[in-house]
Amino acid sequence: MTPSETVTAFIQAIEARDVNAAVAMLALDVSYENVPMQPIKGRAATAQVLNGFLGGASVVEWPCSSQYEVGNVVFNERLDRFKIGEGWLELPVAGIFHVGDDGLITLWRDYFDLNTYMTQMKELGAHG
Amino acid sequence: MTPSETVTAFIQAIEARDVNAAVAMLALDVSYENVPMQPIKGRAATAQVLNGFLGGASVVEWPCSSQYEVGNVVFNERLDRFKIGEGWLELPVAGIFHVGDDGLITLWRDYFDLNTYMTQMKELGAHG
Repeated sequence: MTPSETVTAFIQAIEARDVNAAVAMLALDVSYENVPMQPIKGRAATAQVLNGFLGGASVVEWPCSSQYEVGNVVFNERLDRFKIGEGWLELPVAGIFHVGDDGLITLWRDYFDLNTYMTQMKELGAHG
Repeated sequence: MTPSETVTAFIQAIEARDVNAAVAMLALDVSYENVPMQPIKGRAATAQVLNGFLGGASVVEWPCSSQYEVGNVVFNERLDRFKIGEGWLELPVAGIFHVGDDGLITLWRDYFDLNTYMTQMKELGAHG
């Protein structure tokens, strides 16, 4: 798979809420960085975070409006959507991924507006 | 100039706080999108916004930790720094630029955490 295909497969696993399949595409020492927050280090800690925010959603869709690949770097623009109860939380995100020569994702860095997420979580009565 | 060189020159004009030189690199109908906020349409409205947020800073530095070009699309990761009074405001940003065949920037879309900006503005006693 190309780096872009790897990222697409990773996002498909997220959408399937299959955390085990998703984290199997991450390097053991992956750095998962939600830019407004502290980086999360390692596959196990990333799995824990993913379980947390995917677990509260009954449907997850992360459509990419653009995705580009330059060497081992993949960049995409996404609308991360989570169905929570009867409502949808929608978060615009710019993501950067570095994919190692072994096909595993070594860096996943998302830029987004944290308050856009928190406000909707609160409106939907969810617990972040 | 390549699209990436155009974006670099645009950022250099921003750092020089030369709004006239910066907006001369934008298409007349540019879309300037700070993702947590409403898009700004057109060169004139963009100039007004740039004058607003560059005018309050005595030094502006936007170092790019990465910048990639794919066709007419340029993506970068930046730390937008503004010296305001005796302090520095620092904002991590992911930017996407589309550059037209005429060398003018038609789209400038920045992803960032608005509260990271607002909190520092308040701490520095500035008015946004």
